[in-house]
Amino acid sequence: MRKVIRATPLCKFLRYCNDSPLDKTVLDCGAGGDDPPLRLFLESGYKTVGIEISEVSLNETRKFCKEFGLRLNMFKGDMRKLPFKNETFSFVYTYNSIHMMSKKNVAVAMSEIKRVLKTNGLCFVNFVSADEPPHAGAVEINKGEFLKKDIPWHGVKCPNIDSYFEDDAPDVYFSNFKVVHKEKRIIERIIEGKKVLQAYIDYIAKKK
Amino acid sequence: MRKVIRATPLCKFLRYCNDSPLDKTVLDCGAGGDDPPLRLFLESGYKTVGIEISEVSLNETRKFCKEFGLRLNMFKGDMRKLPFKNETFSFVYTYNSIHMMSKKNVAVAMSEIKRVLKTNGLCFVNFVSADEPPHAGAVEINKGEFLKKDIPWHGVKCPNIDSYFEDDAPDVYFSNFKVVHKEKRIIERIIEGKKVLQAYIDYIAKKK
Repeated sequence: MRKVIRATPLCKFLRYCNDSPLDKTVLDCGAGGDDPPLRLFLESGYKTVGIEISEVSLNETRKFCKEFGLRLNMFKGDMRKLPFKNETFSFVYTYNSIHMMSKKNVAVAMSEIKRVLKTNGLCFVNFVSADEPPHAGAVEINKGEFLKKDIPWHGVKCPNIDSYFEDDAPDVYFSNFKVVHKEKRIIERIIEGKKVLQAYIDYIAKKK
Repeated sequence: MRKVIRATPLCKFLRYCNDSPLDKTVLDCGAGGDDPPLRLFLESGYKTVGIEISEVSLNETRKFCKEFGLRLNMFKGDMRKLPFKNETFSFVYTYNSIHMMSKKNVAVAMSEIKRVLKTNGLCFVNFVSADEPPHAGAVEINKGEFLKKDIPWHGVKCPNIDSYFEDDAPDVYFSNFKVVHKEKRIIERIIEGKKVLQAYIDYIAKKK
């Protein structure tokens, strides 16, 4: 197992969580994959819960947990309908996930995140910036909403919409929060000789 | 001691270093302060060396090391003239430091970093982006070089010049490197009710 997680921005979130007086309970929405960042919180003494909509990603995590003997408490679930009571978690995050739906669904997921978060609890959410070019062949069906060609993502076929946000557009989701950190990251990668640009807008916010 | 360092981008650098086959020796140029990120490498099994030009920052680190019983091997030094033989270190970084000099001096420091780095060794360097507004009252004496008012920085009075870089301008320093990660980060903070913008261009590069 790699000692350091790939999801570097969550290291910053962990630092904010560690500084909070609330109890150490954390939820990851879209938690699956072969290197689940929840393990960073587990190793730091948190009680972790993760939900994941994709069976493929869930199975990757199951395999990872079995290999390294970890209990992350992850199960199948949809961040638009979180199966938890109000104010269950001190900390909630969704990393590189919430953009994979329409803006209407993003708003629903954000209200769910707010609902299950305790007062003074912290959330981390990142959005894909409109600076990032859409997928090849994707069609803009609404401003910042792109319908991709039939690319099933990790076994999840619908709705195949990606949402992109202007710099301050996601601010609207944090009206009952205090934003404690906001960062836009523009990453250049060279993939097969071509320059590829990725751009994210990260928020760390405290529920009022 | 906080479990997680403030300098999040160095978590990403550590991940790249951990994946390298080279021996675990790391140099931090501008290593001082009250929360030295070198401790992240020490805790991860690296042999650490740090140099720092400011006595004030050095004393902060000495106090920190004494309190927590750490040996970081830090001493006074100037990154424009590194007191090490060629190809001494597998990994070299300078974090939030190299912008505090003229571009001529930045070029000297970059050639020193390259010199002391082993072939296939990795460096992390971040620059301040021209997107960040200069200090209040600073005067642009050359393109992207600002002479600050008489603000001694941690006991270091001269030369009081900050350098700012356009997006691809630092590429020139990496002509004998392969850039493995490049990221621009734009951070909004609210300080005393005012929006403050910070902007960095981070490079992780492998020496050819």
